Amino acid sequence: MKLLEDRIRRDGVVVDEDVLKVDQFLNHQMDVGLFEEMGKEWARLFAKDNVTKILTIEASGIGIACVAAEQFGCPVIFAKKSRTKNINGEVYSTQVRSFTHGNVSTVIVSKQFLKPEDRVLLIDDFLANGAALEGLIDLVQQSGATLVGAGIAVEKAFQPGGQRIRAKGVRVESLARVKSMRGGKVEFCGADF
Amino acid sequence: MKLLEDRIRRDGVVVDEDVLKVDQFLNHQMDVGLFEEMGKEWARLFAKDNVTKILTIEASGIGIACVAAEQFGCPVIFAKKSRTKNINGEVYSTQVRSFTHGNVSTVIVSKQFLKPEDRVLLIDDFLANGAALEGLIDLVQQSGATLVGAGIAVEKAFQPGGQRIRAKGVRVESLARVKSMRGGKVEFCGADF
Repeated sequence: MKLLEDRIRRDGVVVDEDVLKVDQFLNHQMDVGLFEEMGKEWARLFAKDNVTKILTIEASGIGIACVAAEQFGCPVIFAKKSRTKNINGEVYSTQVRSFTHGNVSTVIVSKQFLKPEDRVLLIDDFLANGAALEGLIDLVQQSGATLVGAGIAVEKAFQPGGQRIRAKGVRVESLARVKSMRGGKVEFCGADF
Repeated sequence: MKLLEDRIRRDGVVVDEDVLKVDQFLNHQMDVGLFEEMGKEWARLFAKDNVTKILTIEASGIGIACVAAEQFGCPVIFAKKSRTKNINGEVYSTQVRSFTHGNVSTVIVSKQFLKPEDRVLLIDDFLANGAALEGLIDLVQQSGATLVGAGIAVEKAFQPGGQRIRAKGVRVESLARVKSMRGGKVEFCGADF
């Protein structure tokens, strides 16, 4: 998606060859006008899939998922880190390793919000090692719902998550796919990558 | 706001006299159509305030804030819990006690996203003891930006946060104000409360 790639070129900060900071517009300060355009693009890509629920994971996926959901006319569920006093009853639960934070968290979704008849689109801001996305896939599989695919804002295509998850047969639509950040310069994958 | 009060009456679950679960539509599963109407109401209430930034706190405020921000045409910033490897440079920082989780967290905002010329509206899902909202107020005050006020979805008016924060001169616009939940029944404040 040219709009997002241009924005990354303009406002993204390459910290090192692995770390891309997009906190000016994506995951700390959030440009909701950009999110609207991203939502329209995913709505176009998944137009025939009758999405009934969007599932994301706290925290930085939530804003993108909610603005995108307006295009789909469906609710958003976010997988919560750890169990809080306010969640009673039965939950689906999985483990997610965070490479950014260097820890493993348990994330949960209430069983009442994911049903076998649901058709679920996953949305997240980043795909790199794929741990968060695999956690969400596990939650959907536990529920018996149909996994329609995943909409990702920025995929670091030089890290293994995207390839591994596509190899499982999951449709992954990343709006910007970063091929490399060598020398502090962001290079995107071509359409044939 | 009648739409939100009606929804709380229909789908809210009174766990005990203090705890109201609204995770069917507000803070686990999220009804973005409802969020759009809430955003329009805050945009009406703060129409003359030239809001340049909306500030919220992770996690459950983010979706509401992003959908509301579409009405204001401004970016959202969310205060992040703890410092991650991906945040470099200078931040504003404050302490927030969570009564739900029974702990104290440090929340931060990058200094580059809150400037003295900003006019900031705070958005959050709940106002009860007021700790999260006071943390956000502290962050705005540290930055020298103008605090326009706060838009809250559900205020538990029988807890002390709202009264204490209004007494400081902060404009707080809560779309549903719960007066009591005695006997498992949600009673809302009248317009004169």
